[in-house]
Amino acid sequence: MATAEPVMLELEEEESIWEPLLEHRPVNLRRFASNSTSQVAIIGSNLCPIESLDYEIMENDFFKQDWRSRGQAHIVSYVILKWTLCLLIGVISGAVGFFNNLAIENLAGIKLLCTSNLMVANKYLMAFGVFAVTNFVLTMLAVTITSSIAPASAGSGIPEVRAYLNGVDAPDIFSPSTFLVKIFGCIATVSSLHVGKAGPMVHIGASIGALFGQGRLCKGHLTGKWLKHFNNDRDRRDLVTCGASAGVAAAFRSPVGGVLFALDSLSSWWRSSLLWRAFFTTAIVAIVLRALIDVCIKGKCGLFGKGGLIMFDVTSTSVVYHLVDLLFVVLLGIIGGVLGCFYNFLMEKVLQLYSSINEKGTKYRLLLGGTISIVTSSVLFGLPWFASCQPCPDSTKERCPTGGKMGNFHNFQCPPNYYNDLASLFFNTNDDTIRNLYSSGNELFDPFSIILCFIASYFLGVISYGVVAPAGLFVPVILTGAIYGRFIGMLMGSRSNLDHGLYAVLGSASFLGGTMRMTVSVCVIILELTNNLLLLPLVMLVLLISKAVADSFNENIYGMILKLKGLPYLEGHAEPYMRQLTVSDVVMGPLCMFNGVEKVGNIVHVLKATGHNGFPVIDGTPISSTPYLFGIILRSHLLVLLRKRNFLPTCALTSIDLSKEYSSDDFVKYGYVKPDCIEDIELTEEEMEMFIDLHPFTNTSPYTVVETMSLAKALILFREVGLRHLLIIPKHNRKCPLVGILTRHDFMPEHIFGLHPTLMKSRFKKLRFEESTLIRYLWRILLSSSHAPSSSMG
Amino acid sequence: MATAEPVMLELEEEESIWEPLLEHRPVNLRRFASNSTSQVAIIGSNLCPIESLDYEIMENDFFKQDWRSRGQAHIVSYVILKWTLCLLIGVISGAVGFFNNLAIENLAGIKLLCTSNLMVANKYLMAFGVFAVTNFVLTMLAVTITSSIAPASAGSGIPEVRAYLNGVDAPDIFSPSTFLVKIFGCIATVSSLHVGKAGPMVHIGASIGALFGQGRLCKGHLTGKWLKHFNNDRDRRDLVTCGASAGVAAAFRSPVGGVLFALDSLSSWWRSSLLWRAFFTTAIVAIVLRALIDVCIKGKCGLFGKGGLIMFDVTSTSVVYHLVDLLFVVLLGIIGGVLGCFYNFLMEKVLQLYSSINEKGTKYRLLLGGTISIVTSSVLFGLPWFASCQPCPDSTKERCPTGGKMGNFHNFQCPPNYYNDLASLFFNTNDDTIRNLYSSGNELFDPFSIILCFIASYFLGVISYGVVAPAGLFVPVILTGAIYGRFIGMLMGSRSNLDHGLYAVLGSASFLGGTMRMTVSVCVIILELTNNLLLLPLVMLVLLISKAVADSFNENIYGMILKLKGLPYLEGHAEPYMRQLTVSDVVMGPLCMFNGVEKVGNIVHVLKATGHNGFPVIDGTPISSTPYLFGIILRSHLLVLLRKRNFLPTCALTSIDLSKEYSSDDFVKYGYVKPDCIEDIELTEEEMEMFIDLHPFTNTSPYTVVETMSLAKALILFREVGLRHLLIIPKHNRKCPLVGILTRHDFMPEHIFGLHPTLMKSRFKKLRFEESTLIRYLWRILLSSSHAPSSSMG
Repeated sequence: MATAEPVMLELEEEESIWEPLLEHRPVNLRRFASNSTSQVAIIGSNLCPIESLDYEIMENDFFKQDWRSRGQAHIVSYVILKWTLCLLIGVISGAVGFFNNLAIENLAGIKLLCTSNLMVANKYLMAFGVFAVTNFVLTMLAVTITSSIAPASAGSGIPEVRAYLNGVDAPDIFSPSTFLVKIFGCIATVSSLHVGKAGPMVHIGASIGALFGQGRLCKGHLTGKWLKHFNNDRDRRDLVTCGASAGVAAAFRSPVGGVLFALDSLSSWWRSSLLWRAFFTTAIVAIVLRALIDVCIKGKCGLFGKGGLIMFDVTSTSVVYHLVDLLFVVLLGIIGGVLGCFYNFLMEKVLQLYSSINEKGTKYRLLLGGTISIVTSSVLFGLPWFASCQPCPDSTKERCPTGGKMGNFHNFQCPPNYYNDLASLFFNTNDDTIRNLYSSGNELFDPFSIILCFIASYFLGVISYGVVAPAGLFVPVILTGAIYGRFIGMLMGSRSNLDHGLYAVLGSASFLGGTMRMTVSVCVIILELTNNLLLLPLVMLVLLISKAVADSFNENIYGMILKLKGLPYLEGHAEPYMRQLTVSDVVMGPLCMFNGVEKVGNIVHVLKATGHNGFPVIDGTPISSTPYLFGIILRSHLLVLLRKRNFLPTCALTSIDLSKEYSSDDFVKYGYVKPDCIEDIELTEEEMEMFIDLHPFTNTSPYTVVETMSLAKALILFREVGLRHLLIIPKHNRKCPLVGILTRHDFMPEHIFGLHPTLMKSRFKKLRFEESTLIRYLWRILLSSSHAPSSSMG
Repeated sequence: MATAEPVMLELEEEESIWEPLLEHRPVNLRRFASNSTSQVAIIGSNLCPIESLDYEIMENDFFKQDWRSRGQAHIVSYVILKWTLCLLIGVISGAVGFFNNLAIENLAGIKLLCTSNLMVANKYLMAFGVFAVTNFVLTMLAVTITSSIAPASAGSGIPEVRAYLNGVDAPDIFSPSTFLVKIFGCIATVSSLHVGKAGPMVHIGASIGALFGQGRLCKGHLTGKWLKHFNNDRDRRDLVTCGASAGVAAAFRSPVGGVLFALDSLSSWWRSSLLWRAFFTTAIVAIVLRALIDVCIKGKCGLFGKGGLIMFDVTSTSVVYHLVDLLFVVLLGIIGGVLGCFYNFLMEKVLQLYSSINEKGTKYRLLLGGTISIVTSSVLFGLPWFASCQPCPDSTKERCPTGGKMGNFHNFQCPPNYYNDLASLFFNTNDDTIRNLYSSGNELFDPFSIILCFIASYFLGVISYGVVAPAGLFVPVILTGAIYGRFIGMLMGSRSNLDHGLYAVLGSASFLGGTMRMTVSVCVIILELTNNLLLLPLVMLVLLISKAVADSFNENIYGMILKLKGLPYLEGHAEPYMRQLTVSDVVMGPLCMFNGVEKVGNIVHVLKATGHNGFPVIDGTPISSTPYLFGIILRSHLLVLLRKRNFLPTCALTSIDLSKEYSSDDFVKYGYVKPDCIEDIELTEEEMEMFIDLHPFTNTSPYTVVETMSLAKALILFREVGLRHLLIIPKHNRKCPLVGILTRHDFMPEHIFGLHPTLMKSRFKKLRFEESTLIRYLWRILLSSSHAPSSSMG
């Protein structure tokens, strides 16, 4: 089967020919990087490429042989191990989540207690000193370890996990150092800044899942015999999904919400069996948390242990509402939508600004972190002075003022028997503040204090997230929403039958809907947080409205961060303009192909010259001499072949026994430990002149589409099946059996608009065939109608 | 582009050649029908083929032209309409669900009250007479209307909806007559037999969705101008999904559970935007139900109105448990699994028996229905005589004995101040009995009564479902589970801290897990039914265990019914043996292909001779004369072309203006109203000799796979993308551009094992690479090890 005429172009003569079809086009990457956030800059500085993941099973002869050799015992062990790993992920996630909460509550609690004690003793300056210095030290610590050890652990991690489950492997997101820094950095940041712990917890959970599928912890062989069966992108994806579910479940103590969050917001592919395993994992988390919290109820956990398994129990409040209350709920939804999309807008601007600062180096990152910390401390300590002192209510069971203890009635600068309601909101941990806001009773807070608190929480949330340290978005958003929800409740006064605490819950829902734009999962999480199923219709309504309103203005916050990070996230739906284009409209440049039996020198040259990860293998039949597509071979497999050095002296088919020369371990794809580069393999001149038979290692059944297929249809295939390479075959039988290769980047709007700028201009085609279109459209009509008279008057 | 040599074989000469590759092979259908249930027999008697659905967008020139002509107003109207339809589906489903409940509670309630009154007056025989006659009449009524008007409305409808959302269109399942018979038949059956109302409600909800997408209600044109945009299988699928969610939500008053049920158990494909719309629909259902139930609380609904939005409120019971209680919960899970799979086994046998009876005609169906009704009446009336009389408890707030009223303390044959606990369970509506079993307090029931009640409920459930009338499975399963759950609780006595009511809830969960094998959705539904989130970890645990245990023995009940009905449901995962086969191993026979410009006579002949629904169109370039694949054309489109009679006199390309001669309405696919058959189109001899240019109507970009691809990989593509036809192209450039067409039937195990009987024999290859394998394997080890000693001793 040796080819008489090589189909490949001569490399030495036309080297430039190889450049355009890079899978990771430097051009695109640079474009992505140019508007990057802090975390991108860090990824960029490592110069690691953002790799795609291989979910497709490489059906080559070697794989088939290996598959046939597997016995029943293998299957049974695999299944046992799969469930055992889920169990372990659940147990570890639950334990880590508990530990995180415990540490944060105690660290922040002690800080607040000290401040509070000093305030009681009227040592105001010293109180501020203790408060600000503690915050500053903790923030600096978090920024230092993040910046120096694991830059990938900055931020919430949810966008990265989402991208990973979409098929994009951001470098180092699941390395052990990232995992550890995330845990300890998160404790330090959450104790000192206005950021949340839920996002990092999702990343931590996903990391636990990924670590089981890493294969080895370093370049050495720290790997179990059985774990290696999970060393592929498919199984790793499943483990990460289960881990992320467990993370959410641990963060919110919300098992069903965890599964739904992973399904609705994180995962791009989903199977029924995976649903079941994720469910099992979160059930384990719930049981572990329950057991650990039982220990705490006996008072062995310091300042932690109030919440129990339900964090913010509002069952005591009865939910009675009439039709008129629905109006207020709708209003709350609209406000949430507007505030949410403005939040996202501000966040984008702030992250862009921070990115340019963080790019300059660790010193600048520390400077930024320090500034944010000092601003936070000053705001939290300064604002309560503007609040008026409230007399202690008579009816409360709680101690008022709390004095040197934790509680809802901080007297701050107020005289005895008075309390400062703003200080009560600020000088509690976020969880306690939310619990406070969700509690029933209508006379706890002064409207002016609530407004101040809302402004502080809203803007501190915006400025704090961009710090180079683990930081989540959920808790600040829930808190901010609860504040304005309660405020709206106060404004409504007696016109509404709903309790102010319920307004606060609905406010949280509306702000979550406005920023995160998740509906089902947020709804279930809120129900599980508050343990009040009767709220369900109201929460659903408010979420739908706020999401609809906010969607008409901008994207959800995670999508926005993904874009800023330059991660090529592939959406599941096709835009209308994709129906106008065929696949051949977006592929570029000549192809890099190999012959079935290829010269070693050629392979080395191509691997060095390009960044491609898959190469079509072309064969010609000696009789007809028309070449045909034999399959596709991966770069990683080529590297294995080159390293093995089983070369042939002449251009002929190999006759070696595959199972003797190669084992399935050779082709295992490890997790974050990157395989050797082509530069690491040194070959002699003699070897370069020899040949390799690629046939046994070529995937003989790649997915193909015909060149006339619309981009929309190809996208559905690419996305639904989870591909990395999609081969385009010609319609007519031309000389060349292949037109091009589609990768993830070819579906990115940036790439398509770059090739077809006219599409950009015709607005209609760019509009998404989606719900948001409608509202955006109506909005524009409204704007134009309101503008028209004024311009005619002008 | 006229082909010099036609690629097609001469039809007249070799007619037999067309037979083997029928998409709906009569052979297979007959095999399916041979082991059919009552409902299959009915479907079979209509001789309607089970059609597949077209989810793929047919990218032909006509479609592309039509697409380009659509303006922005079109998109906006489409989006508005989509949401409006969801709103309507929600409102109607909520209202119908409410009406159904109201009617059932009142009908059954009046029947029970009359019986009860007569019992109080000691007129035992007359009481039995009233009871049995009412049941008999109602059952006969239901069987009569179902059998004569809409046989497709028999059973729960969940398997059919599941198959529809998988791409299989069983005849008449969404016709208006089925819809109406389902509503009224369900009321009659549920009031008289031991069957549930939830399954029919899912079908009713799905029907509401489908009716909006039907296009026209009969062969006339009862269709709105805008609704026609939903007259395609894709949009109809979305509407049916939303409708099914709404149905579940209305049945259980469980909005989140409804969405999850549709996602987890019904739907085969899912998009994020669909999740959102389903969520919106169920929110509307919740609001409508709330409003209607508010009316009932004021006592205007007769005997209905107790439950409120939460059906079985168990929040009053405190959930405190320790590790030792988990053991009992595990035990409950195991028992549920064993009972559940035995239930499925019995159900299968009973349905097979009933099927052979029902096949014989309406008389036999009535006879069967009557027998079941009389058996049910006798059991319910007879068994309480065996129960001992219990003295009325002093502490109860309820009236005891209830006398002629509804309540938990029926005195039946007992003296005053005594009550018959078995009669209390039997002479309530199912909802009230479940509420009774879920209530806290440990001394309500006698163990002997509970055992009798369990046996009656278990076996009545098995024998009742097969009746030719609308009947659900959920409520009997929940009830039976609650009974044995409570019994286990009584057995445990003081060893367990859990309340007996909680044991009943967990028993329901375990039996649901054992029969239905749904985890997440059932879990959420139970939580929403009982309004007690603290139960969550226990419910999760019990569901996981019962599902795992039951899965090791047999399939879930809906899968089993699907198989009995002969609906070719396509599983989402590939079996291991599918990796051993290539796609060319399963396609059979020669292909029916058309030329780009084809003779009318040939088309008519092929359409008459085959049952195919898609035909490859082959073109040859005049220069090279090697034919190539132009695309695929649908039977329905060919029929439109034949009916339009725009024929060409010679074999040449057409030059007509497409948009003038054809409109997109011509190609609309209506719902259950089947298009005309080829037999209805009469053409003259002259016309038969003319030609049609198929090019503008041929889908130019069908999905293709190479012949060497494994069946497993092709299945993933077929299932994930939602295909009806998958073309197989040759690896080498041979004379023929196409190897065959894969359809749904080619992936059915029956078909594959028919072609490759050796696969059947090798047990390993047949084993599913799934969780159940493990347990089955361990089970076998256990069995063999327990057998081995005894045989050696013998």
